[in-house]
Amino acid sequence: MDSNRIQRVLSELSKAGIPQMIVSSPSSIRYLTGVDVQPMERLYALILRTDGQHALILNHLFTVPPTQLHEVWLNDCDDGIAAIAQHLDPSLPIGIDDCWSARFLLPLMKLCPNSQFQLTSHCVNTVRGCKDLKEQVHMIEASHLNDTCMAAVEQFLHPGVTELETADFIRSEFSRLGASGTSFDPIVSFGANAADPHHQPDGTILHHGECVVIDMGCVWQGYCSDMTRTFFCGTPSPTHLAIHNLVREANERAEAVIRPGVRFCDVDRAAREHIANAGYGANFTHRLGHFIGMECHETGDVSGNNTDLIKEGQIFSIEPGVYLPNQMGVRIEDLVLVTKDGCKVLNQYPKQWKQV
Amino acid sequence: MDSNRIQRVLSELSKAGIPQMIVSSPSSIRYLTGVDVQPMERLYALILRTDGQHALILNHLFTVPPTQLHEVWLNDCDDGIAAIAQHLDPSLPIGIDDCWSARFLLPLMKLCPNSQFQLTSHCVNTVRGCKDLKEQVHMIEASHLNDTCMAAVEQFLHPGVTELETADFIRSEFSRLGASGTSFDPIVSFGANAADPHHQPDGTILHHGECVVIDMGCVWQGYCSDMTRTFFCGTPSPTHLAIHNLVREANERAEAVIRPGVRFCDVDRAAREHIANAGYGANFTHRLGHFIGMECHETGDVSGNNTDLIKEGQIFSIEPGVYLPNQMGVRIEDLVLVTKDGCKVLNQYPKQWKQV
Repeated sequence: MDSNRIQRVLSELSKAGIPQMIVSSPSSIRYLTGVDVQPMERLYALILRTDGQHALILNHLFTVPPTQLHEVWLNDCDDGIAAIAQHLDPSLPIGIDDCWSARFLLPLMKLCPNSQFQLTSHCVNTVRGCKDLKEQVHMIEASHLNDTCMAAVEQFLHPGVTELETADFIRSEFSRLGASGTSFDPIVSFGANAADPHHQPDGTILHHGECVVIDMGCVWQGYCSDMTRTFFCGTPSPTHLAIHNLVREANERAEAVIRPGVRFCDVDRAAREHIANAGYGANFTHRLGHFIGMECHETGDVSGNNTDLIKEGQIFSIEPGVYLPNQMGVRIEDLVLVTKDGCKVLNQYPKQWKQV
Repeated sequence: MDSNRIQRVLSELSKAGIPQMIVSSPSSIRYLTGVDVQPMERLYALILRTDGQHALILNHLFTVPPTQLHEVWLNDCDDGIAAIAQHLDPSLPIGIDDCWSARFLLPLMKLCPNSQFQLTSHCVNTVRGCKDLKEQVHMIEASHLNDTCMAAVEQFLHPGVTELETADFIRSEFSRLGASGTSFDPIVSFGANAADPHHQPDGTILHHGECVVIDMGCVWQGYCSDMTRTFFCGTPSPTHLAIHNLVREANERAEAVIRPGVRFCDVDRAAREHIANAGYGANFTHRLGHFIGMECHETGDVSGNNTDLIKEGQIFSIEPGVYLPNQMGVRIEDLVLVTKDGCKVLNQYPKQWKQV
């Protein structure tokens, strides 16, 4: 149990006027208690109360070390929602985590028909979003492993290799490097497949003249890395090369404006305008970036409608992309750590275009 | 779009008195429309209405082939909940999927304060639960690959190997066999680690005298397999051997009673009583099994409080286990397909104890 972190979340809850909250994100519970559980569809929750009457709802299937919390153990046949309700005050507003499933929320609302329910993940995410020094070290190391792996992938890629073989290579390389796993299924996209930003690797074979998008990350000490680079197999066409330069410049322009006090939407704009000015605005189909830490996608995004101000200690991705349907795609992504007066780019692997 | 499947879901909704439903499970949407998207935190939903005014809510980041549905395309800055509300009739009850996140549900409830919200996943899951012949073939083939992989794992295991090395071997073997991936992160547990049913593989080294739990599955043609076997490294102690036999018998007793019309809780009881009678009831800490298909864990479980009757075409796991904290664990899991008058066990790999 991390009393300091819990105290900061309780202080955010007090500011929001919410005296109790059901934290259900497994990574938030890990962040606040040290307890690491993958509950899948089972009920798992940390009830935080500003009066200090916290409770951790567990299932006998989970194996956890002793906590300093009041533990409530359920089995697969127990009524978990009733157990949760017993640890809440129905006369007071109840904070709910963004990710809590309707399967639990609707029955709880039925059980507490007069309670007021409110999304309060931001009270946890505000705290989680600013990484402490120990977390920063883990994140820097995780990105260093990612850089090392990308260099190996560059050597591995060759005409005739398939996307799936490349994805397998990435996994085994991360494992060889000592990572505990990938932070998400590696994206490996050749040629026209790269027009789909979230393409899943398949049996597609790499040919001369095609682009190669590699979007990957590993988990190190419970923290995630995430980086994208776009290569070319053989000589790229002038258009493809120009798009690569454009996306890289957009990435660099965005990173150049990051510092505490700047709005996220202005960082997004720095990249988006550069791409739009070149006539590819409609081909940049997603937000510029997302927060990252214990989870690969944490709450908080770098997008046109996030007017929040950047804070020191935050870590997020900067990943502009241009996608030409049925032709190709380019994305260049780094993680950045916000420093006192700017940002530290966590990925050292070069982003200039390269042939493989 | 699969009109037949959609029609069956609409008929279930009508029976439940719900004229509209927000289907949000990506695999349910794939089942009903053929559209395959991994939305992560982004809004993605299929609105089904008994009046035929269906709509598919998409994000420009997703790459999908043309559907025959009314498509509503959002970008990362749009108000997706408002778009959903526009396609619902707020004066009528609104069905909600079990897995829908509070981040979407609570804002929708605020936007439609007088609407009645109700969990209606069962209307989809009842249809999805009974696999058609094509699905059955995929499931049989996926389990066949799992059997083949388990035989390779048996050969691979040796004193001195680590859990992570074994998990990597499993992944690469599935890839070599042509599977598109694993259906979940393989569980590889040596010795005392096996006391945690969901242990995540780490650097633990295999030693003589220890048990080895391998719980793994692959994805084949979009369908999942899932099997557990427990080996021993060298000669097991008489107690460990007796536990292995006990768990295997519990597995076989449960499989022997499966046929259409039997209650799930009675299948659970057949296994649980056998283990309890031997004095290990408290060490069998989870339900007996779960449904499986496009997802590794689908809704529907084989547990003491599921009084539903088994139907032909259903596929679920039978996985009794006994866990001795700080010592060892044994779990033996098959998938079974319910036939006209019994069940077909989809896993052929032997479940008698074996030395590695």
